[in-house]
Amino acid sequence: MTAIDLTPRTAREALGGLAPATGQDDDQIVERYALVVWNHLTEPGDGAAGRLVRTRGAAAALRMIVTPAVKGETGLTAQEWTSGRKRWLPRLEPARVESALAVAASAGVRLVTPVEPEWPVQLGDLGDHAPLCLWVRGETGLLRRLRPSIAIVGARAATSYGDHVALELSADLAGAGVPIVSGGAYGIDGAAHRAALNVGGLTVALLAGGADRAYPAGHAELIGRIARTGLVVSEVPCGSAPTKWRFLQRNRLIAALTDATVVVEAGWRSGSLNTAGHAAALSRGLGAVPGPITSAASAGTHRLLRECGAVCITGAADVRELLGLGVGMAGDALVDDGRPPTDDAARVRDALSTRSWRDAVDLARRCGMAVSEVEAILGLLALEGEVQRSPQGWRRMVPHGAAPMTR
Amino acid sequence: MTAIDLTPRTAREALGGLAPATGQDDDQIVERYALVVWNHLTEPGDGAAGRLVRTRGAAAALRMIVTPAVKGETGLTAQEWTSGRKRWLPRLEPARVESALAVAASAGVRLVTPVEPEWPVQLGDLGDHAPLCLWVRGETGLLRRLRPSIAIVGARAATSYGDHVALELSADLAGAGVPIVSGGAYGIDGAAHRAALNVGGLTVALLAGGADRAYPAGHAELIGRIARTGLVVSEVPCGSAPTKWRFLQRNRLIAALTDATVVVEAGWRSGSLNTAGHAAALSRGLGAVPGPITSAASAGTHRLLRECGAVCITGAADVRELLGLGVGMAGDALVDDGRPPTDDAARVRDALSTRSWRDAVDLARRCGMAVSEVEAILGLLALEGEVQRSPQGWRRMVPHGAAPMTR
Repeated sequence: MTAIDLTPRTAREALGGLAPATGQDDDQIVERYALVVWNHLTEPGDGAAGRLVRTRGAAAALRMIVTPAVKGETGLTAQEWTSGRKRWLPRLEPARVESALAVAASAGVRLVTPVEPEWPVQLGDLGDHAPLCLWVRGETGLLRRLRPSIAIVGARAATSYGDHVALELSADLAGAGVPIVSGGAYGIDGAAHRAALNVGGLTVALLAGGADRAYPAGHAELIGRIARTGLVVSEVPCGSAPTKWRFLQRNRLIAALTDATVVVEAGWRSGSLNTAGHAAALSRGLGAVPGPITSAASAGTHRLLRECGAVCITGAADVRELLGLGVGMAGDALVDDGRPPTDDAARVRDALSTRSWRDAVDLARRCGMAVSEVEAILGLLALEGEVQRSPQGWRRMVPHGAAPMTR
Repeated sequence: MTAIDLTPRTAREALGGLAPATGQDDDQIVERYALVVWNHLTEPGDGAAGRLVRTRGAAAALRMIVTPAVKGETGLTAQEWTSGRKRWLPRLEPARVESALAVAASAGVRLVTPVEPEWPVQLGDLGDHAPLCLWVRGETGLLRRLRPSIAIVGARAATSYGDHVALELSADLAGAGVPIVSGGAYGIDGAAHRAALNVGGLTVALLAGGADRAYPAGHAELIGRIARTGLVVSEVPCGSAPTKWRFLQRNRLIAALTDATVVVEAGWRSGSLNTAGHAAALSRGLGAVPGPITSAASAGTHRLLRECGAVCITGAADVRELLGLGVGMAGDALVDDGRPPTDDAARVRDALSTRSWRDAVDLARRCGMAVSEVEAILGLLALEGEVQRSPQGWRRMVPHGAAPMTR
């Protein structure tokens, strides 16, 4: 028979730095450790495990499944119980749990469980299929700032049209304080994340594999940038590979975390349609950006418009409407934030003067960034009317609010 | 006081060749003439005139409005009656009616009134605002063949994308026997008409001015081609200029004649949105073709998708669905027609042999068309698998149905 050591001492040792910030009593430590064990026993969205853990508690549920003759009610059907044990018990390897926890600690991945204040309550809409815990790179407090937030997702094989639209929507919304959630993939996802970063907005990447692993590998730098000012989140343990199933379940998380999902481009059978389906099933907003009917990359968004009642999105104002935000209003995610401005746009802003003109090379040196990065951000700031350009270089505009009121 | 001569003799003389094909008795002649007079007194969509004429008869209604003290019920409110007489009576000029009738006769424009079997009954959905009569170039019997039919309309300032989509939709549907109705304008309308003609389909141009006048003038040749195999229709008398009001009312006719309206491209304030509005108000189908959100020429179609519940149209199959036609089914407009094949494609088909190869120059000579026109049609016929090409020229394929059945 499989055994598991659920003593407070073992739990505390295994968790190490991943012990809860508050609530350090023995039962809480054991429960937290048991949740992590359950996280290893299950694939995302396991409803039977979810029901068992939520109704019995993680530690009690673990003790139940390792006991052949169960005392008390499991809350599961006989079939669920039998087939559940068959898939859970073979995975019960404390060594694997320990190693994943060690990877998380060394990679700076934090653990957030449903009992903590950071837990995004909107995941409760997933019922038994909600994640048991989240693995997070970044400031976990930002998880509370995702209401409202918008998922901007779409094809990896995006066209330049799709990239352009994703950039525009994301820059506009993120710049106005609406967090941008996406999947970290090539194409639309990447464009959405990048634009949010470039305007100094909050962006969240939901990964299908472990939060310690950048996937796709080509987005390692981008995902690193996201983790620095935003969040990189996964529900599977560190070291987990992104499998097909985990991608589909990751999509449900994107839909559940946000208030609305907007699909920018999607092929006829794109995975983004799966995210859209979850959004619709969860009564979240669903928008789709139209494109030329001659473009295969828009075939999926047109399906959403035709078959799924998606709202036709033609610009950021339409997304605001989808989110129920008034024109000119925005989310308050980045308002009264208090945390130091660490994002790239803020670094460029800090390097600018309102009096002297500074060229891009000088600014890049001042903010410790590449000249090309600084130039890209200056372009965006110029569009926003935040900076002024002259032959001598760039200057920050005095904000309207700071000017003396003359009338 | 204004007078009008409604004797059978005057009516018969004025109508000349525009007398009804059937029903030549005096009352019918006078009624027909009176309808034409009313047509001159009113602008399209005059609901008070419509009610009066439909409830009292055109001749009786005319006699009423020229009599200061009316005997009997007018069916109009006092206000309608007073303001109606004020706008109708100043236009009562029998000479103008006669001259318009003479123009119609010489331009080969026919007169169709609601009592004739050719009258499209679907116009009854316009109620009091239905036209009093139609002026038609072409075979008036085709008016009965517009159920089902589709309106394909859109911006004059179409992009190459819009032109391409209009051509594709129209060629596919018209080739399958669905009549294509449009407004004869530059841009989307023109593309829709042209493609229908090129595949030998039925197309109908609704004009805002008199049916004797090609508007726009640059489409004189196209409108002439439409009149040869299809219909050119107007509700205003010959010689009438296309005014802003008449364009808007012409749009209601396009919507009312057809089962559904598809807008291919439209600017934010395009006149096609007016046609779409009429289609929706008349419970006709309404479809809109999406395009890039970066294209101003698609801003109007996206409005229809967002605000008016238009169906997203991505191809001819979607239009068939909008019309309630099954896949592969089509309208029966050109089926069991019986009339001689007078359209361009039919002329090329006739000039082709199933045995000898004939080149385009030979074929053009045989069917009395330009070589370039013949080549364009041959290309379409080749796509349909109707013709075969070899270095010696073109040959017509033996239809499958004509081959001996071997199983």
